[in-house]
Amino acid sequence: MLGLMQDWPLTVDKILDHAKACFPRREIVTRSLEGPISRSSYLNLWLRSKQVTNALREHGVTLGDRVATLAWNTERHMEAWYGAMGMGAVLHTVNPRLFPDQIAWIINHAEDKVLFFDATFIPIVEKIAPQLKTVKTYVLLADREHTPTGKVPHFVAFEDFIAGHSQEAAWGGFGEDTACGLCYTSGTTGDPKGVLYSHRSNVLHAMLANTTDVFGCGVNDTVLPVVPMFHANAWAIAFVAPMCGAKLVMPGAKLDGASVYELLEDEKVTFTAAVPTVWQGLLTHMRDNNLKLSTLKRVAIGGSAIPESVLRAFEEDYGVEVIHAWGMTEMSPIGTIGKMLPEHFASDHETQIKAKMKQGRAPFGVEMKIVDDEGKPKPHDGQAFGRLLVKGPSVARAYFKNAGAKNEKGECLQPCGFFDTGDVATIDPLGVMQITDRAKDVIKSGGEWISSIDIENIAMGAPGVANAAVIGVYHPKWDERPLLVVEPKEGANPSKDEILGYLNGKIAKWWTPDDVVNVEKIPLGATGKINKLALRDMFKDYKLPSAQAAE
Amino acid sequence: MLGLMQDWPLTVDKILDHAKACFPRREIVTRSLEGPISRSSYLNLWLRSKQVTNALREHGVTLGDRVATLAWNTERHMEAWYGAMGMGAVLHTVNPRLFPDQIAWIINHAEDKVLFFDATFIPIVEKIAPQLKTVKTYVLLADREHTPTGKVPHFVAFEDFIAGHSQEAAWGGFGEDTACGLCYTSGTTGDPKGVLYSHRSNVLHAMLANTTDVFGCGVNDTVLPVVPMFHANAWAIAFVAPMCGAKLVMPGAKLDGASVYELLEDEKVTFTAAVPTVWQGLLTHMRDNNLKLSTLKRVAIGGSAIPESVLRAFEEDYGVEVIHAWGMTEMSPIGTIGKMLPEHFASDHETQIKAKMKQGRAPFGVEMKIVDDEGKPKPHDGQAFGRLLVKGPSVARAYFKNAGAKNEKGECLQPCGFFDTGDVATIDPLGVMQITDRAKDVIKSGGEWISSIDIENIAMGAPGVANAAVIGVYHPKWDERPLLVVEPKEGANPSKDEILGYLNGKIAKWWTPDDVVNVEKIPLGATGKINKLALRDMFKDYKLPSAQAAE
Repeated sequence: MLGLMQDWPLTVDKILDHAKACFPRREIVTRSLEGPISRSSYLNLWLRSKQVTNALREHGVTLGDRVATLAWNTERHMEAWYGAMGMGAVLHTVNPRLFPDQIAWIINHAEDKVLFFDATFIPIVEKIAPQLKTVKTYVLLADREHTPTGKVPHFVAFEDFIAGHSQEAAWGGFGEDTACGLCYTSGTTGDPKGVLYSHRSNVLHAMLANTTDVFGCGVNDTVLPVVPMFHANAWAIAFVAPMCGAKLVMPGAKLDGASVYELLEDEKVTFTAAVPTVWQGLLTHMRDNNLKLSTLKRVAIGGSAIPESVLRAFEEDYGVEVIHAWGMTEMSPIGTIGKMLPEHFASDHETQIKAKMKQGRAPFGVEMKIVDDEGKPKPHDGQAFGRLLVKGPSVARAYFKNAGAKNEKGECLQPCGFFDTGDVATIDPLGVMQITDRAKDVIKSGGEWISSIDIENIAMGAPGVANAAVIGVYHPKWDERPLLVVEPKEGANPSKDEILGYLNGKIAKWWTPDDVVNVEKIPLGATGKINKLALRDMFKDYKLPSAQAAE
Repeated sequence: MLGLMQDWPLTVDKILDHAKACFPRREIVTRSLEGPISRSSYLNLWLRSKQVTNALREHGVTLGDRVATLAWNTERHMEAWYGAMGMGAVLHTVNPRLFPDQIAWIINHAEDKVLFFDATFIPIVEKIAPQLKTVKTYVLLADREHTPTGKVPHFVAFEDFIAGHSQEAAWGGFGEDTACGLCYTSGTTGDPKGVLYSHRSNVLHAMLANTTDVFGCGVNDTVLPVVPMFHANAWAIAFVAPMCGAKLVMPGAKLDGASVYELLEDEKVTFTAAVPTVWQGLLTHMRDNNLKLSTLKRVAIGGSAIPESVLRAFEEDYGVEVIHAWGMTEMSPIGTIGKMLPEHFASDHETQIKAKMKQGRAPFGVEMKIVDDEGKPKPHDGQAFGRLLVKGPSVARAYFKNAGAKNEKGECLQPCGFFDTGDVATIDPLGVMQITDRAKDVIKSGGEWISSIDIENIAMGAPGVANAAVIGVYHPKWDERPLLVVEPKEGANPSKDEILGYLNGKIAKWWTPDDVVNVEKIPLGATGKINKLALRDMFKDYKLPSAQAAE
């Protein structure tokens, strides 16, 4: 027997319709690429997004076609966004920080028909245009005055693109499972893989993000997404803000401490979100200039693990609540949120800080478990660690064009229907998850797992150590044993015995690395993280002394 | 093109699964029917609900079968609820305040197979059992010790019903549009009509209710639903609390001021919800005993318009935020929420109080418009009023077994796909809705609408008036004109001229009633509201002096 409730497909055009109906005059403030602060409203966003829809239709874009953006957070980017999504085209946010060749590869793979881009990225667009096979229309997110003419390819100014088009256009009318957004995730190996969000997944994810214990935004909030729209929909904020009627502040291209601080204060921002490096820039700027935050209440921090100093600075020095978030592009992106539980509030400040350093707990709509190599669940005792698997309505089940498929249906799911995050984690009795390693970096010693990151974090504290990395290397008896690679501080030369002595008592006996090797430089990736792949390659012919003894 | 996200049907079993996974030890406190306060947890609720599922299966209940409850808010009621819903049976909450004959009619109409009931309602069950055609099993929500034996029909004690059954049972596995709950709404005319909620509508509605600007509950809240589960799912709280992990306090059968106060204080309640009469009882008890509220932060008030004195008492005397809510059983029930906007916060306290007296604004998931008789939208200027139409994923499109159908599909929808609330309302420029009348009570004079309630509210203030009611009566020129019926205060006998003189200047000239008639007693309905149907019947042969003049 079916229920007798209305059919109301969860499509993202309804989000902007709601904002227009209920909060037409609420402001959208943008630090424009042209320079000055510009002021708009949800009504204006709605009207201009309708114009985008009509302009896209005129340019031959139809249901399911991909439309790309290479752009900062601005109102025009939002207009392209809702204009494309509203008509059932797929808005493909391209990460401009990738190498131009990768960008070209991604745009060709997505078969984008139209490319919207900011002036910042003109050099990239000019460079890759000859390689782009499907893009027919290049729209610069600017007015005519700021659009260079005579370029190859021909650039249309956004204001010219939409000018003269009607502010009425049909939106929606398709099923909620229709594709809505496309975002590529680039692993350390292989080609980038596209996550294809549906309207349903985006709407449900925004509803989840709007609950009290996640971002907790409401109509009285002013929200500044420093996290870019090309990072998993600005962590949902491009949907969350119009859904709840929050005033929206868009930072444009300037994400430095001084610029972000200016917006936070001038626009009376109450909630903001970004990766740790942005906040390090802001905190440095505030310390250097002896500044305070007068309106900010909550800051969401994710993308990489939060440094304790950043957490303490916000909470202890500035009275701003830190919401530690963890997620993935494949999760739309919210996975867990580090909001405190009654059990944490009942404990002291230091315990709370420790709890906030963990990645947090799953909101309704995210199922989470940790399993061993056979898929058997591990206990939630805060000690046992296992591969972190997730499930939910805003979690990917496959990649665009079946990239990385694990079964004949093209899915990237485990047999149990969970997505494998590739992370290894613990979950404590309160349900709080902590990432302990990447699955491929975990060391499997005699069937037991050793966390490379745990050892690294402790080894970093040893005298004379500038950087430390642990990898698993072949062992005839144990399959793998940990090798600790040390980059000494300038002028220092710590010995194996000194370092192992330092570790003694700080880690389990059987976790103790079988060898310690000093190197001049530990290889780092583009984001500053240790490049384990390169490191493993460096040590591919290495033999542990213990292995030689065992043979 | 379809998105590539996981299939994760929105079914209510996932709500309790989430609570069990993330908040297993969070408390559920019940004032038991047996007397003492009992303490349980979400884990326990989950385990015992699974036992209910197995017991129901043993008694032949299967997907789509209806299971009735005639019960107060208790943990056992929640167990029956999730046990039935989890397996895909339809949980039918029966309102025990109806007449026994109505209860019997409803249970027969729903074809309930099992009836769970509280000891309070044994007399009703004994009385109606001979009329019940489909109920095979009668389960008293008690242990064996508190279950009378030798009754006809045979009563099974709930604890015996579930005893020995496994605490593992498959839940879900059906589509999200599957029927989940059934709740009858009784109008002033005709048979009661059943609203058949789906799993999807209940889950989406709970997500909507959990957003910051609706109930705004989180894991650090302690929630006391005084509103009964047989009133549209306790306004979603039976889903909201386990979804966010709030501690749940169930008041059992005692809803008087002293009992509610005791729970609010003893259990450190932060959020509660009920109809105005409950709060009048609580406020009287607190005033009489000079008591304060030490933990309560927010109180949701709905079901009927909030008296200003109740609003002011909570906000001004006790520092508790009032959330004025409006809804209908057909809306799951949330329609609007009177949370303040930035524009209200920028105004003074008296303006805010005035704004809070309105019914509020629609959250995302509720579309709302006001239209004239031709379905043409009326402006949102706070002045124009029209029929209030609503739309959304938790709004009914039809009643059970096609009751009250408006088209051949059995739907009760307008051609535009909106549900007609039967109310007449204004919507102001901030999107805040105010009910001005029931549609059938509005007076249609020469194509323009006159609000009976507006005139009544003003006439109530005239000297010598105890009660006042306005109905439309036939007029040959204007179709209808208002007739004001007055019940004078004891010993008073206000004249027509005195009363019209009092109204002069307080209402539009053309709203002035064409006649004023004094009666001994204005007929009231069971809930104390004016019975307009009876009043119209009293005056069915009445002729206005102005009508006689016009003929």
